[in-house]
Amino acid sequence: MDTSGKTIKCKAAVIWEVGRPLSIEEVEVAPPKSHEVRIKIIATGICGTDGHVLTGSFPKVEYPVIPGHEGAGIVESIGEGVTGVKPGDKVIPLCLPQCGECSSCLKANTNCCLKTHLYEPQNLMPDKTSRFTCKGKQIHHFLWISTFSEYTVMPDSTVVKIDAAVPLDKACLFGCGFSTGYGAALNTAQVMPGSTCAVFGLGGVGLSVVMGCKAAGASRIIGVDINKEKFVKAKELGATECLNPQDHEKPIQEVLVEMTGHGVDYAFEAVGCLDTLRAALASCHLGCGVCVMVGVPPLGSQLAFDPMLLLTGRTLKGSFIGGWKMKDSIPQLVTSYMEKKFNLDALITHTLPFSKITEGFDLLHAGKSIRIVLVF
Amino acid sequence: MDTSGKTIKCKAAVIWEVGRPLSIEEVEVAPPKSHEVRIKIIATGICGTDGHVLTGSFPKVEYPVIPGHEGAGIVESIGEGVTGVKPGDKVIPLCLPQCGECSSCLKANTNCCLKTHLYEPQNLMPDKTSRFTCKGKQIHHFLWISTFSEYTVMPDSTVVKIDAAVPLDKACLFGCGFSTGYGAALNTAQVMPGSTCAVFGLGGVGLSVVMGCKAAGASRIIGVDINKEKFVKAKELGATECLNPQDHEKPIQEVLVEMTGHGVDYAFEAVGCLDTLRAALASCHLGCGVCVMVGVPPLGSQLAFDPMLLLTGRTLKGSFIGGWKMKDSIPQLVTSYMEKKFNLDALITHTLPFSKITEGFDLLHAGKSIRIVLVF
Repeated sequence: MDTSGKTIKCKAAVIWEVGRPLSIEEVEVAPPKSHEVRIKIIATGICGTDGHVLTGSFPKVEYPVIPGHEGAGIVESIGEGVTGVKPGDKVIPLCLPQCGECSSCLKANTNCCLKTHLYEPQNLMPDKTSRFTCKGKQIHHFLWISTFSEYTVMPDSTVVKIDAAVPLDKACLFGCGFSTGYGAALNTAQVMPGSTCAVFGLGGVGLSVVMGCKAAGASRIIGVDINKEKFVKAKELGATECLNPQDHEKPIQEVLVEMTGHGVDYAFEAVGCLDTLRAALASCHLGCGVCVMVGVPPLGSQLAFDPMLLLTGRTLKGSFIGGWKMKDSIPQLVTSYMEKKFNLDALITHTLPFSKITEGFDLLHAGKSIRIVLVF
Repeated sequence: MDTSGKTIKCKAAVIWEVGRPLSIEEVEVAPPKSHEVRIKIIATGICGTDGHVLTGSFPKVEYPVIPGHEGAGIVESIGEGVTGVKPGDKVIPLCLPQCGECSSCLKANTNCCLKTHLYEPQNLMPDKTSRFTCKGKQIHHFLWISTFSEYTVMPDSTVVKIDAAVPLDKACLFGCGFSTGYGAALNTAQVMPGSTCAVFGLGGVGLSVVMGCKAAGASRIIGVDINKEKFVKAKELGATECLNPQDHEKPIQEVLVEMTGHGVDYAFEAVGCLDTLRAALASCHLGCGVCVMVGVPPLGSQLAFDPMLLLTGRTLKGSFIGGWKMKDSIPQLVTSYMEKKFNLDALITHTLPFSKITEGFDLLHAGKSIRIVLVF
């Protein structure tokens, strides 16, 4: 059936207001306007950030909203002026646009396109209207991509074509979690061969950091988590040893400094907890250790620490979606995946039908999963 | 007169206890032991850090002590096993040793030799005795080099030979202030040609940062200080414009972000004030800005800021003596100075006899000087 140019009715998960649970609804998805693309989402991961939209702790969101930002799909139709993709292409929606024209896109050392939600809310399309309605009401977009809908519309700056051979129920992880962790090691920290790394938090992002450290040639990768059930998979993916802070009387940063002589070369925080971030910084080698913040801290929080930790030559930096310029990089990452350069599949512990999205969030919050993928 | 092997009596500035003023005394300086060097100090700069020793806000100092750490002199005699310098050599004492053997010295990316005061106090020579006595009492060393003494003894890991043609009443600044600022731009930030820099604090260290940014090819160097009298020299040394935060109603970081479009590529804090450091970080370009902490923060203070400033791709790092491996680098910096690659002399506003050291500190605290050099 040719749906091009027509409004499509489909299922989507809507948050009607802050604090309300996700509600699966039939929504209408208008056709793409100029420089927009309508995509049939095939699979979408559940990321902790979507949970922040439920609780209102993600900034600048407007409700009602359809969240979801870790998807993979197939182009259904394109608006005028779209040249990068065509109907039938397998694509990844990008939670960080790459317009290719702004001063950030023209710089080599940042992926923070000036069209990101960091500058302007992405609750509506660039023309300030929504493509979603439900029960007669306008529904907002999330990060312009709203992957918790079977069909979704986004600007062409936020979508990239990938290898047609890739399974989309795996490739969706390139949209956020895997890329965030893997890039934190390769791009943000630029881990050197033979170095020592500590990864705090062994969830999907932390395990992707572990894979990035391994790919970079780190000789020692120390996983840190208070849930020792995570250690088997961490070691499978590259951790050379794992520590549970609860097994030690000393603060974990002191344990790490002793274990490594004078601290680790690189520490990654993939929890989003300020205490853990402080421990990660303090576990870094004096004079050269680099601490990379990957986890998202609580909204409005303040990070406080002894500034002498920095003055004595340590570096603290943040990684935003792994530092990737997404449109340039995701197709290359997909190619590396097809060449089996890393084991993305190991991150997926559950694949559920989209209708079980609430069960998926329950699994996420119970800490019993790594990555949960929903398929339409 | 051959003084080798004998105790020398000379003038030195002693702090007898915390809070007491500097007192010029006749001290006895014992001959150097194995792997030690005795130096006749010709000139020594006054650095704010020496002021911290007076007030007790420099960690791990033991009193009575002879401070001073920005000196230049001539080797008087050497102990057994010393090979790097010989009597008569012009030298710079190093406030950061370079033993050449420890794991830090063997790493390319750090200058924090494991023999620094960051690991072990340097109040006594490595054999745990002092070479200074006064009125029958043992006097402590400061950072192993105590340049506020006409003669001083230090381990051979903390001294380096320099070009015999250099005037020592200028070269002393390589021992701390100039190297700290210049290296913060060149080594720690690695300022890229064509970039935009902001330098907070236009004292001796900040002006050295300005010179480093200029040497690195920055196209825009914005000086920031609440004392507009500093602007003339800052512009002479490379600042392309200067801002006084008191001239603006908006916070200075907002002014800088507006002036530059989206923030500066590099911001340097050379004041040692946490509010200034927060402003410097917030003035950095989203996604790629690098904030370098150069000023020494108050002892025991906590730096607090919104961690989202980092998560969105900014970097915060500290620079310790400009990141130079001092023994390798100071001779090269001296050569560059002789080739007139930077205008070190412009930093020196006062040259006083050593006997006027108290007047020198008064000038420093009155904010009426850039760098004050004392000559014996």
